[in-house]
Amino acid sequence: MTVTALNHFKTYRNSYLQQLVDFVRIPSISTDPSYSKDVEKAAQWVANKLTSLGAQTVEIVPTDRHPIVYAERVSKIKPQFTILIYGHYDVQPVDPIGLWLHDPFEPVIDNNLLYGRGASDMKGQIIACLGAIESVVKAGELPITYKFLVEGEEEIGSPNLKDFLHCECQKLTSDFALNMDAGMISPDLPAITYGLRGIASFELQIQGPSRDLHSGQFGGAIHNPAQVICDLISGMHDTNGHISVPGFYNDVLEIPINARNEINRLPLNEEQLLEQTGSPGIWGENEYTPAERIGARPTLEVNGIQSGYTGEGTKTIIPSSAMAKITTRLVPNQDPDKIAQCIYKYLENSVPKSARWSLVCHGGSHAAIIDPELPAINLFANALQTVWGVRPIFKREGGSIPVVGEMKRVLGIDSVLSGFGLPEDNIHSPNERINLVCWDKGVQSIINFLYLLIEKG
Amino acid sequence: MTVTALNHFKTYRNSYLQQLVDFVRIPSISTDPSYSKDVEKAAQWVANKLTSLGAQTVEIVPTDRHPIVYAERVSKIKPQFTILIYGHYDVQPVDPIGLWLHDPFEPVIDNNLLYGRGASDMKGQIIACLGAIESVVKAGELPITYKFLVEGEEEIGSPNLKDFLHCECQKLTSDFALNMDAGMISPDLPAITYGLRGIASFELQIQGPSRDLHSGQFGGAIHNPAQVICDLISGMHDTNGHISVPGFYNDVLEIPINARNEINRLPLNEEQLLEQTGSPGIWGENEYTPAERIGARPTLEVNGIQSGYTGEGTKTIIPSSAMAKITTRLVPNQDPDKIAQCIYKYLENSVPKSARWSLVCHGGSHAAIIDPELPAINLFANALQTVWGVRPIFKREGGSIPVVGEMKRVLGIDSVLSGFGLPEDNIHSPNERINLVCWDKGVQSIINFLYLLIEKG
Repeated sequence: MTVTALNHFKTYRNSYLQQLVDFVRIPSISTDPSYSKDVEKAAQWVANKLTSLGAQTVEIVPTDRHPIVYAERVSKIKPQFTILIYGHYDVQPVDPIGLWLHDPFEPVIDNNLLYGRGASDMKGQIIACLGAIESVVKAGELPITYKFLVEGEEEIGSPNLKDFLHCECQKLTSDFALNMDAGMISPDLPAITYGLRGIASFELQIQGPSRDLHSGQFGGAIHNPAQVICDLISGMHDTNGHISVPGFYNDVLEIPINARNEINRLPLNEEQLLEQTGSPGIWGENEYTPAERIGARPTLEVNGIQSGYTGEGTKTIIPSSAMAKITTRLVPNQDPDKIAQCIYKYLENSVPKSARWSLVCHGGSHAAIIDPELPAINLFANALQTVWGVRPIFKREGGSIPVVGEMKRVLGIDSVLSGFGLPEDNIHSPNERINLVCWDKGVQSIINFLYLLIEKG
Repeated sequence: MTVTALNHFKTYRNSYLQQLVDFVRIPSISTDPSYSKDVEKAAQWVANKLTSLGAQTVEIVPTDRHPIVYAERVSKIKPQFTILIYGHYDVQPVDPIGLWLHDPFEPVIDNNLLYGRGASDMKGQIIACLGAIESVVKAGELPITYKFLVEGEEEIGSPNLKDFLHCECQKLTSDFALNMDAGMISPDLPAITYGLRGIASFELQIQGPSRDLHSGQFGGAIHNPAQVICDLISGMHDTNGHISVPGFYNDVLEIPINARNEINRLPLNEEQLLEQTGSPGIWGENEYTPAERIGARPTLEVNGIQSGYTGEGTKTIIPSSAMAKITTRLVPNQDPDKIAQCIYKYLENSVPKSARWSLVCHGGSHAAIIDPELPAINLFANALQTVWGVRPIFKREGGSIPVVGEMKRVLGIDSVLSGFGLPEDNIHSPNERINLVCWDKGVQSIINFLYLLIEKG
């Protein structure tokens, strides 16, 4: 039956690719309220696909912001396994829009690369899952029940997911989750992610004078909010790349030596990082390797900063306010709420009396560690090896996928966390793309995995 | 004749006010290339007014960017004095536009305040000069030749003025300049400015990775340009409000004790500054009073900063670049070119190898000091006293008016530097306005001054 399923995919491959193109065309940017209709449209699109797949139950569940699509395709024979397929149909914003070579929502295929916002993160991964499952279903019924949870708020930190998991924990009962929101190492080297960083997001606002002031008329006696925010941000790191917000590292555990060794097998040395990013030099905590800094150490990043006049030419003002968006990436045992308290206290102690401040916390999630020895993970690794011909790398990833930790905490299930995106896919950046050779192999891997699960699981 | 001239202004006051409204309607923002047609239109408008005033010569002189309007009205009787009237017809940008209560280029009069960009800085001052001179001319010929130099690049640092002064120094020969681009202390207290700060303007660009990166995928190992620029800006001041760019204070002279005493007569104490600005607290160099910090000490201000995502919600990126606009205000004996070198060297020594940088210098000007004992200045003070009933304050101002120093250096003439704008006029800020009571008195003062000059000069 494996061959039948693989052939089905081969035959209908271009129709699945067309589905991906249609899906990417919907600008489902979750963070920007002006796109909320498009986010809704994407939810409906996913629901329609799940209905086509033969799901007996398909629900679009409203939340405080963007709906969750939930569906069930119960096996017609007594199921041996229930898999909860996770995905998110929302995407990142597109700015700086001027750097895109094509319209981010008019996908273009060039040299086996499909360009468009969400192509890799993660609409391409969702279509890979749906294509694989449909191919398997068409080849003959398997004793597997599929549950689908596709949210629309992953890119804004999944604020309503935890409640949904709590409320629907009975309905969501499964053996494990399949989550393709992590990535590969390179086109020839697939990976399984067993560690994820947590996240906590903030917006810092500094208010000085009640209006922009003439810098000649008041400069020297009135504190400049742009300067205040620079002082505050500068004070968040020391010169060795350590975060100097008091208490930030309090709950961080040292990385076990065997985990360090596994992490350092990753091809993430200085040269490779510089090539992947175009940066002129490496940076960070000296006592950790670049791979450890990304995979196993907490970080604090300024995602954006704005103050005053930034148009053409000169405007001689003291800006009235300044704003910075900050996210922290957390490692196991760090609590996003405690981190928020550390940052709040740091500001309380650091903001001078000559400025007013406010901090908005956009919520966060804990880091997650999955036992890499779990049977389903092992079978997925075998499936990847069958298709790619190499053993996948087991890695801890720098990104945050809140749902993995939440599913473990609330539903008690582990996630098989993999995916077919590449570091050079420009996710969250202009010119996001997906490598269609990897995507094809990804679908084949999932097909293989489902049969391996029944044969050997 | 003084009474006749004052009566002429009284009779035609509303027609002069209408001229001001028409002038403010032209959005002559010099810094933004998209307004260059409007800047040209304003030049033409000024030229037409000068023709109406009876100038025998009216020229619109092209420069590399915005034209200079030059005109001469030669006295029909043997002149005793030649006055060079200076003005600038360009205005500051209007953002943040959302904070304006009215369209900045649709003037609104409310409670004797005329709102609009340029109303105070300095279209209102130009119309006051033209209204006063026309009233004097209508009352009977005086032995005064008027030359007019109205530039369109003051708000961008007058990059082409110096060349014009050099090329036309013969034509521009005058006894002194009359420049109404400085301001009053309060509606009841006029001022004559005898000191101005110089300026040097910069744009700093930090480049990190070649594109915005996923902060989870690369955070911790790639240096964040927003963080780099904050470190650099933070390092430009110490915690006592001193500028810590090495060499910055090298050429600064201590303020003479009598100048300190005069400066400290200004009503610029902590309470007044907080009320004028809405700031929560005062800031700056402790060993100087607020008035000294503004009037007699050099400063460095961030006028704008931008990096990464600053829209709604969260975007988890390491921005690829960061930009800051910086201006310094300079005191006598500081050289803008040397200051540019100091900043360049500071960056050369401070920017880490993990980032690329560039610094654009937008040019600058020296500070200027005028002898407050000059006869024309003394007569102008008398004219102000006649109208307001109080002796004007002699002050050193924090702002920069490059033309004053350049006229002294190139033409060898001093400027009578005054004006009828108020600290609360919101110049360079949203809701710029001019107090029409002060404006009326201003016109009367200039009329009085011209007659005093002939009687006692």
